[in-house]
Amino acid sequence: MIQAKVAEILESNQFLQEFEINGWVRSFRSNRFVALNDGSTINNIQCVIDFEKFDPETLKRITVGAAINVKGILKESEGKQQRVEVEAKEVKILGDANPEEVKLTILSPKRHSLEKLREQAHLRVRTNTFGAIMRVRSKLSFAVHSYFQQNNFYYVNTPIITGSDAEGAGEMFKVTNFDLKNPPKKEDGSIDYKKDFFGKETNLTVSGQLEGETFALGLGQIYTFGPTFRAENSNTSRHLAEFWMIEPEIAFCDLDQNMDLAEDFIKYVVKYVLENCKDDLAFLEERLANEDKSKPAAERSDMGLIEKLNFVLENNFKRVSYTEAIEILKNSKPNKKKKFKYIIEEWGADLQSEHERFLVEKHFKCPVILFDYPAKIKAFYMRLNEDGKTVRAMDILFPGIGEIVGGSQREERLDVLQEKMEELGIEEEELWWYLDTRRFGTCVHSGFGLGFERLVQFVTGMGNIRDVIPFPRTPQSAEF
Amino acid sequence: MIQAKVAEILESNQFLQEFEINGWVRSFRSNRFVALNDGSTINNIQCVIDFEKFDPETLKRITVGAAINVKGILKESEGKQQRVEVEAKEVKILGDANPEEVKLTILSPKRHSLEKLREQAHLRVRTNTFGAIMRVRSKLSFAVHSYFQQNNFYYVNTPIITGSDAEGAGEMFKVTNFDLKNPPKKEDGSIDYKKDFFGKETNLTVSGQLEGETFALGLGQIYTFGPTFRAENSNTSRHLAEFWMIEPEIAFCDLDQNMDLAEDFIKYVVKYVLENCKDDLAFLEERLANEDKSKPAAERSDMGLIEKLNFVLENNFKRVSYTEAIEILKNSKPNKKKKFKYIIEEWGADLQSEHERFLVEKHFKCPVILFDYPAKIKAFYMRLNEDGKTVRAMDILFPGIGEIVGGSQREERLDVLQEKMEELGIEEEELWWYLDTRRFGTCVHSGFGLGFERLVQFVTGMGNIRDVIPFPRTPQSAEF
Repeated sequence: MIQAKVAEILESNQFLQEFEINGWVRSFRSNRFVALNDGSTINNIQCVIDFEKFDPETLKRITVGAAINVKGILKESEGKQQRVEVEAKEVKILGDANPEEVKLTILSPKRHSLEKLREQAHLRVRTNTFGAIMRVRSKLSFAVHSYFQQNNFYYVNTPIITGSDAEGAGEMFKVTNFDLKNPPKKEDGSIDYKKDFFGKETNLTVSGQLEGETFALGLGQIYTFGPTFRAENSNTSRHLAEFWMIEPEIAFCDLDQNMDLAEDFIKYVVKYVLENCKDDLAFLEERLANEDKSKPAAERSDMGLIEKLNFVLENNFKRVSYTEAIEILKNSKPNKKKKFKYIIEEWGADLQSEHERFLVEKHFKCPVILFDYPAKIKAFYMRLNEDGKTVRAMDILFPGIGEIVGGSQREERLDVLQEKMEELGIEEEELWWYLDTRRFGTCVHSGFGLGFERLVQFVTGMGNIRDVIPFPRTPQSAEF
Repeated sequence: MIQAKVAEILESNQFLQEFEINGWVRSFRSNRFVALNDGSTINNIQCVIDFEKFDPETLKRITVGAAINVKGILKESEGKQQRVEVEAKEVKILGDANPEEVKLTILSPKRHSLEKLREQAHLRVRTNTFGAIMRVRSKLSFAVHSYFQQNNFYYVNTPIITGSDAEGAGEMFKVTNFDLKNPPKKEDGSIDYKKDFFGKETNLTVSGQLEGETFALGLGQIYTFGPTFRAENSNTSRHLAEFWMIEPEIAFCDLDQNMDLAEDFIKYVVKYVLENCKDDLAFLEERLANEDKSKPAAERSDMGLIEKLNFVLENNFKRVSYTEAIEILKNSKPNKKKKFKYIIEEWGADLQSEHERFLVEKHFKCPVILFDYPAKIKAFYMRLNEDGKTVRAMDILFPGIGEIVGGSQREERLDVLQEKMEELGIEEEELWWYLDTRRFGTCVHSGFGLGFERLVQFVTGMGNIRDVIPFPRTPQSAEF
């Protein structure tokens, strides 16, 4: 007897071989056909039960959600739904699932809304949709590591708790060991952080970039892949308070090479899931197509999910300077007809999501890399161009997702960096260690950040970012 | 001309080929020999400079720590230290390093203490020791992912910010968005957490296990690999407030299979670094041998680093029940002679680090798996044995490291689990979702947690855990 996963049995040609399978019952039709799933694939193995040969007490306990152990013989299936099936010889109930209780959960066999599934995030991975998403997410994670490791990047775990609040990427959560009812105070009434666990004010990181740079300027090329946090009250389908970010950083690399890297990287990971998640992607494509049917025609996708992924693989990302993009937008129909909420009037305007979507979805109809943004709307560490007013920043915009990558060539000149920090009121003492990298063998270097959940959204076609992470953290919600 | 990494050039046989190299100067001897490193390997490429052909101003700026670009021809080296060298045709200074300033840092070419290196954690990756450790750490991370992915485990990102404080693995850090000077309070004077970001009290996770279990009972077999936190005031060489943990969780898996998995996993990752980090391990072995020389004979290792790694590969871990271990300890010399700080008097005693070290280093002289611990000294979720007093727990103990893995078969029986939680005062409402996994198709399942930094310590031979993570977080310290 071979103990095997459902995924293996479904591929097997060892007919008449006896197999042992553990799994959860997805359905039990006609007191005869058990659809069994063990998470190894989206597909179920059909176990055929001759009810006359089984104890009625056992049969009664084969209910949706129950865990069972089946021993049986592999056969070619007569049904058209499946190639193979298992003729059950023995069935053991491992864990019951009371049908009355199951009815109250998302395990019950009917269509549940994504909102309802979110409320039962501890069970939703047992549904087809979330099983598929989480398998794809896992494969995509491995593709990320594989790409960088194959290309001789080193993985670096930058700190999660940070004493530095100068990263400037957004609002931070505080981390403390104080009794909040009664934190120690100094004579002047301010909080005495010296008495806190770390002896100073600490926060959850918003980005590992600055620490990542110190490592790139020693190991040459590194990447991070870890959780980052934003304490922003954005209750949208595009924001999470806790999300995973990928941040490569490369010494001796300019913005053009940085764009090449980002494009090559994205194509690699998309190709990887196309090759390694065929069944799950096929299911997710169908799910998306069904979802689309309930939408107004204008909001439906032009392409199916897999077609869209192939499109990204096969086309160069369009590289457009901010200045060119502003010209395109200024002269666009929605701008002239005042259809945009924010009308583009002059160079220097920050681009809103509506503008990015116009460029990507209407104008270029492909992924777009915008570069050379006005210094004023970008972070302090980006390299100033010779024009004195733009910086070597780049954003990659994806259809349906918006910004998926934000990166830049970093300001490697100590004096220019110091000047910029002073202008923005960032204390040198806060970032002495960051400035040290410009003191001792500075060099041209670049990097980018990619929000992993945005990538998972793109690959799975899920519209809400809360549906591509196991347990989403959002304003007013930290269940589980 | 080929732009190449130092690691590639050192392996190259393309003599007379022109190469372009970027890197940092490690030394410049006799105004002639530049040792250049770019982080791709622990080894430097020797660039030979004919000083008569170069501008003296440029030569003056080739100083330790400076970033330079060298164009030159690959030659066989006449020196015995290296197989190949590059005859420099052109040298460009990319970033200076003022020797007077370098003197004040750990970049200066002399031996610095590990303590001093820790104070300059932003620069220490440019030293041989830390370059080697961080390259090994990166490869080891990838080995972890490779092992689980090859064995069809799914990677799961369990939440970092958690609303559940019932994990019971240790003291937790609080996460809040409140102004600590003036947090909103309820009428009775208690903090009004409803007004905090998540609408409830939240902490940093101490373990992803409970959430991991919910995923294993759907996807079959999963692993986590992410940061975990302990707000414990342990200022030792074995503790960090922030560290990375690996936690696999497997449905339909008992304790014996769990031990098999842990042993197989550890052997795989050790083998992976032995094969992929030869140069770095050779360096670290020598470092350890030198460090050992300054220790009293009794504290020195019996084996070299690589020998020790091979020993782990080639020997079965010794599996010993807690009950047997207590007998061995009770009858041991240090116990009888009262050399232990904590004398073992009877069954039920919690094992201290001194006892674990005796078992591993003196008695068995190999990695040991202890199992079937008294229920009283273990966590609530471990499966009760038929004897009613022991649980299906296991710890793996390693020489020089102590506990490297802690795991168990989980209590899958709803009633037994509920009884245990009541006994310990854990509210069912807190863990309703965890109990649900026992309500709907529960099954035998197991898992373990492995502290990644302990593993890196073991593989690199570093005695202090602060030296195997990029930016250590410990009581009173959260620099960078």
